Amino acid sequence: MSVVVVGSIAFDSVKTPFGQCEQVLGGAANFFSLAASFFTDVKLVGVVGEDFPQNHLDVLRARGIDIAGVTRAPGKTFHWRGEYGFDLNEAKTLKTDLNVFSDFKPNLPVHYRDAETVFLANIDPELQLLVLDQIKSPRLVALDTMNFWIEGKNAALKKAIARVDMLFINDAEIRQLASESNVVKAARAIQKLGPKTIIVKRGEYGAVLFQGERMFYVPAYPLESLFDPTGAGDTFAGGFLGWLDSKGQHHFDDLKEAMTLGSVMASFTIEDFSFKRLEVLQHEEIEERCKTLQQATHSPNTVHLRRPSSS
Amino acid sequence: MSVVVVGSIAFDSVKTPFGQCEQVLGGAANFFSLAASFFTDVKLVGVVGEDFPQNHLDVLRARGIDIAGVTRAPGKTFHWRGEYGFDLNEAKTLKTDLNVFSDFKPNLPVHYRDAETVFLANIDPELQLLVLDQIKSPRLVALDTMNFWIEGKNAALKKAIARVDMLFINDAEIRQLASESNVVKAARAIQKLGPKTIIVKRGEYGAVLFQGERMFYVPAYPLESLFDPTGAGDTFAGGFLGWLDSKGQHHFDDLKEAMTLGSVMASFTIEDFSFKRLEVLQHEEIEERCKTLQQATHSPNTVHLRRPSSS
Repeated sequence: MSVVVVGSIAFDSVKTPFGQCEQVLGGAANFFSLAASFFTDVKLVGVVGEDFPQNHLDVLRARGIDIAGVTRAPGKTFHWRGEYGFDLNEAKTLKTDLNVFSDFKPNLPVHYRDAETVFLANIDPELQLLVLDQIKSPRLVALDTMNFWIEGKNAALKKAIARVDMLFINDAEIRQLASESNVVKAARAIQKLGPKTIIVKRGEYGAVLFQGERMFYVPAYPLESLFDPTGAGDTFAGGFLGWLDSKGQHHFDDLKEAMTLGSVMASFTIEDFSFKRLEVLQHEEIEERCKTLQQATHSPNTVHLRRPSSS
Repeated sequence: MSVVVVGSIAFDSVKTPFGQCEQVLGGAANFFSLAASFFTDVKLVGVVGEDFPQNHLDVLRARGIDIAGVTRAPGKTFHWRGEYGFDLNEAKTLKTDLNVFSDFKPNLPVHYRDAETVFLANIDPELQLLVLDQIKSPRLVALDTMNFWIEGKNAALKKAIARVDMLFINDAEIRQLASESNVVKAARAIQKLGPKTIIVKRGEYGAVLFQGERMFYVPAYPLESLFDPTGAGDTFAGGFLGWLDSKGQHHFDDLKEAMTLGSVMASFTIEDFSFKRLEVLQHEEIEERCKTLQQATHSPNTVHLRRPSSS
């Protein structure tokens, strides 16, 4: 089993009400890889600049992440600058320097092309299509996107979405993509474009999964101290797809477990800047939070109504 | 078993993106009573004006609701005018005419005073205190409030909150009440003021219950067609407390069931203006939605992590 992920590897400069950091390691594919590596083998595709630290590549390698697909190009690494208000639900992008990412053409190493699971992180949908063309016969392909591509490359995005099994998207974005304010209806509409499974990310309110007529809700793990939500969505996807890939089966109960793992993994990312918390994370902590989340959502009894004593 | 509820009985004029209505029946105590009447005996306390239709009082009576505590006063019934945007999460109040409500001094009929369960709906906390003084030895007292009282009658509100077991409040309000942006921390802070149990209402995202260190999440029931959220919170409380009163026990698993019932009952209110949907609601429909909601939240397996095959 293995997951191929393609997406950004970046430097982030982030300001939240709780602190700020300059030029720390970030990027969707980076967060995804670290999260998924707790459960399965990960093969990373991306590009970094000459300024990218070798010791971070060593950290990835030490976690068993295959970085044969990471190329180093002349110039600077992709840089994102953003900030969050108190509710931490929405990032405000202050600046995006694509740098080496602007000429990125993903070219998968031969041993990546047999991967069972593929995550097309939030990048230009034309690059997502390029990657899809290079994968032989994946069992599960998932895609993430954002408002920027919904507005700017709608046709290419819809073409990519039509070819995937699963879409990760936040609630504002799915409303925009479907031109429909009701999220349930929006999900049904997007399912008709191709992906059988839609996961709508809802920030501090967790996430909801749609598959056919079935749904599954997971709350965000309750944290008393949140620090920086950057990468939470990609960590969610990493936990989700890493878990699913490791199980090797995709029954609805497996998807439910994956939702729990996604939410739990995201909760660790939020507790500190960059990957700091993921880097010291232990398997026991993951299991503990899964247990807490299940207890906080599972109502064991079937409801049987009785008539009131008088009416 | 019975629940005493005190609060507004009103006419509402509401505009939503899906339609509008003028002078329809509303009011927190009204929504609460109708919802709770599906599960237990309800004793209603409130005031109406000379313009209040007798046939609505007949509807309440037909549902077994005791209206001995509803007085008719000279003048007009309380009137609320509000509107909602597309997300339906927050009402914008355009006009509030207190009318007969401005001189309301609740005086409970003698046979109300033995009630096991009490719901102090969102009214002036000084009136909530007045009602508390008249109840002999309730097993469970719950209170709802809003930003208007948090700002305008903070001391009286805190006095009332100190005397109740359970607080219903929305997420913006608990942040305001506790002066704390983190909802988990805010709930812990408010628990210290008195109520052991806090239910934070989160609009389209459902609700979360805090009791001691334990939590329980329920999503909003997924609806493809929402119409008018007016009364959803009070319907939630009616389903919740009506169910709990009918069970006569308050273990944590009972609270979990009550959360499900609250969410399900609220979903019916949202499907139409005023009480239209509640008036035709059948017990089978309630059970059906409880089942759907449990399936959409219950992940049956315990998560056991395996190490990745190579690392």
